[in-house]
Amino acid sequence: MAQEKEFVRAITPQSEDFSRWYIDTITKADLMDYAPVRGCIVFKPDGYELWEAIQHELDRRFKETGHRNAYFPLFIPESFFEKEKEHVEGFNPELPWVTEVGGEKLEERLAVRPTSETVIGYMYSQWIQSYRDLPVLINQWANVVRWEKRTLPFLRTSEFLWQEGHTAHATKEEAVEETMKMLDVYTEFVESVLSIPVIKGQKTPSEKFPGAVATYSIEAMMKDGRALQAGTSHYLGENFAESFNIQFLDKDNERKYVHTTSWGMSTRILGALIMVHGDDRGLQLPPKIAPIQVMVIPIGPQKTRDRVLPAAQDLVSALRNANIRVKMDDREDYSPGWKFNEYEMRGIPVRLELGPRDLDAEQVTIVRRDTGEKLTAPIDLAAKKVAELLNEIQQNMYDRAVAFKNDRSRSANNIEELETIVRTEHGFALAGWCGDDACEAKVKEVTGATSRNIPFSPPEHMDTCVNCGKPAKHTVWFARAY
Amino acid sequence: MAQEKEFVRAITPQSEDFSRWYIDTITKADLMDYAPVRGCIVFKPDGYELWEAIQHELDRRFKETGHRNAYFPLFIPESFFEKEKEHVEGFNPELPWVTEVGGEKLEERLAVRPTSETVIGYMYSQWIQSYRDLPVLINQWANVVRWEKRTLPFLRTSEFLWQEGHTAHATKEEAVEETMKMLDVYTEFVESVLSIPVIKGQKTPSEKFPGAVATYSIEAMMKDGRALQAGTSHYLGENFAESFNIQFLDKDNERKYVHTTSWGMSTRILGALIMVHGDDRGLQLPPKIAPIQVMVIPIGPQKTRDRVLPAAQDLVSALRNANIRVKMDDREDYSPGWKFNEYEMRGIPVRLELGPRDLDAEQVTIVRRDTGEKLTAPIDLAAKKVAELLNEIQQNMYDRAVAFKNDRSRSANNIEELETIVRTEHGFALAGWCGDDACEAKVKEVTGATSRNIPFSPPEHMDTCVNCGKPAKHTVWFARAY
Repeated sequence: MAQEKEFVRAITPQSEDFSRWYIDTITKADLMDYAPVRGCIVFKPDGYELWEAIQHELDRRFKETGHRNAYFPLFIPESFFEKEKEHVEGFNPELPWVTEVGGEKLEERLAVRPTSETVIGYMYSQWIQSYRDLPVLINQWANVVRWEKRTLPFLRTSEFLWQEGHTAHATKEEAVEETMKMLDVYTEFVESVLSIPVIKGQKTPSEKFPGAVATYSIEAMMKDGRALQAGTSHYLGENFAESFNIQFLDKDNERKYVHTTSWGMSTRILGALIMVHGDDRGLQLPPKIAPIQVMVIPIGPQKTRDRVLPAAQDLVSALRNANIRVKMDDREDYSPGWKFNEYEMRGIPVRLELGPRDLDAEQVTIVRRDTGEKLTAPIDLAAKKVAELLNEIQQNMYDRAVAFKNDRSRSANNIEELETIVRTEHGFALAGWCGDDACEAKVKEVTGATSRNIPFSPPEHMDTCVNCGKPAKHTVWFARAY
Repeated sequence: MAQEKEFVRAITPQSEDFSRWYIDTITKADLMDYAPVRGCIVFKPDGYELWEAIQHELDRRFKETGHRNAYFPLFIPESFFEKEKEHVEGFNPELPWVTEVGGEKLEERLAVRPTSETVIGYMYSQWIQSYRDLPVLINQWANVVRWEKRTLPFLRTSEFLWQEGHTAHATKEEAVEETMKMLDVYTEFVESVLSIPVIKGQKTPSEKFPGAVATYSIEAMMKDGRALQAGTSHYLGENFAESFNIQFLDKDNERKYVHTTSWGMSTRILGALIMVHGDDRGLQLPPKIAPIQVMVIPIGPQKTRDRVLPAAQDLVSALRNANIRVKMDDREDYSPGWKFNEYEMRGIPVRLELGPRDLDAEQVTIVRRDTGEKLTAPIDLAAKKVAELLNEIQQNMYDRAVAFKNDRSRSANNIEELETIVRTEHGFALAGWCGDDACEAKVKEVTGATSRNIPFSPPEHMDTCVNCGKPAKHTVWFARAY
């Protein structure tokens, strides 16, 4: 028990300092390390494995909706950026430039991609000639670089990993439909696989992607009440088509610009996963994404090992046969107590303990990570019971996150109330907005909160602008954000 | 038939101009396009899908041999390169440098990684303290950049995709064992999945990886008799451990340097796949790696469509149930002849034709891409027959490549003979070598051939140096190479 207490103390409690809790948790769970390059991290195997699981789930969904993967170059010639005015203004401050190779200066500087609309736009202009070539539905898995001023592991790093979908369509309607479809794909993935409830909505003009006509996002609430943008989908209109001359001959024999979209989800989603579900014991992973769903730990005195180990191995086989991702830790130089703490900290959803007394009773002890609850099940029904339990945990983690978010969300009728909500109550504030950029800027200045999005389904509609009191054009979620 | 002939003419015959054949083939099969950045290509969906299949196969093998994936930064500080002398000399001429970000000059230039031994070595020095931390078995899937003078799609591009394994071990023995194990993993993959026979051996000192103690490679013969290095595995000794101070406290309580290895396979393997199996009709994909193994094409006059289509659909289902990757092309605006050519050009291993006469006979017509042979099978046995045939094609493609390679390989007793082999016979020459760099350089100067490797199992041992006539220390394969 002494060991256990000491262990728990090693992670700063969330209530004491949430930022420290976050860094303690991701460090102790061995998800990442700081790289020797400003703002960059190393994704260690346990962290990268989570990203691989996310990739696997997303990639399947992209392919099921008709998309194919491709790969475009890392470097983008400077002249490409200048073709879309908003785009270059938005990204210029963050661009790293390759200016020389070997010993020689390049004639044209090359940007390291922060996103690929420009170079992909150029390629699409080569590939698309006729309506028969449309739609083009392509996704890319890649690294991108944005030299941010303040960085935080996973959430905001100079280099990060992501996928970026880029599609081209004959009509606005089709492109908007695609934009919404992919927002739905993200929503379904984040809610059902990561157990994270999100708010779907449209970004205000000041928060939209540079070069987009409209940006849609899903926003999640972290345990400190801050928002995290978990995925975005952009309708780019004809903006990039005009900049890169992506035209096609339509059925009516007219040359037209295509309508494009782009949509992305990045490794910052790992930050959300950690900050939505983690607690003072460390990580909590929803079963559907957990690389290891169940850890089997044989217990009891040394002399019973010969009896317990084969039974534990059988248990592992039974679970594996039921397609449960299971591992056993039968190391002798670590105590059961140490292991219990270790795997709770690493967020493994279920622990099975098997000792001589369990064997006498032909049962196994099951411990849930989400509630800490201890159960028992007959050994021969263990696989079935655990499979059910994993579903239950998945749902419970989602329900709990929904309750937390709802608890911390309420409407604000004026800017003082909004400030109280985001600063004192650490939550999301629903407020009316007249549509004026200045009012949005004022909210940010006074409260530190930014507009998250204009939700598709707000719990209520707000009538007056939270800043100027004029009639509201939109009902907006405001929050302090990562 | 007119259509067909015209189509075939569109690919330059191999015998006429192998380089043009290569470019024609990869362009027409829609595998890639040139990017607007010097020496870079875009991997189009059909090309990238082949890389995904390769990744899938390799990744499984890496995990089965105990490796885990991680991700390290794209940028490497200049000072890191200078720590390993051979390494910096080898890579410096090809390094792109990031010198500014946004508007500001960086204090230290950042190289875009050409390979990651240095930055990974630095991280390992942080992670490894004790023999308990060893071995470290990590792989990374990443993009890398080497600004080569002459580029060729897939084979040599400024940016390419690859995996790089990086491991650290307590002893030389373990590290050498790892080096050989991964060379074997590559060999097994390339031979059994890609149907490409390879020569395993050790690189001569002048051809080894900059910073390695020893480099081992697998070398394949393309259809023009040139060699392509398909994968390499390096024993790095304590070189990088010393440069980055990767030390551990051993069981005997002594601080020691680790022994490291690295091993990589890249998208250039796609070039090998194309140049080993392709012919004047286009690509030929071995069944195990082909994204689509079977294309079903309904044939016959329009009025029989209602009868043929459902039967073709049933055929597709039957094959799919037998885990065969199958697609149907039932488009009406393309003729069967056009489709036959199209899918032969794209290298799909098997074509099934189904028309009213086939249905009358309760059979299906099967056409092999590798031999052109036409067979028939009873419809209800089609799945079984095709599954067998795919195995047969896989083996036949391998056997054929072995025969080709053996046919084009022979020993050379002097430099003139060596030149005849590599320049006139377009093959590989086995020759004795005294071990002197100057003799190796002379062979290259006179014949254009480089030493490929010192094979582990040469067909014969050569006694005298092909250049100076002194006693040979090694028997070496020489060839002109990509």
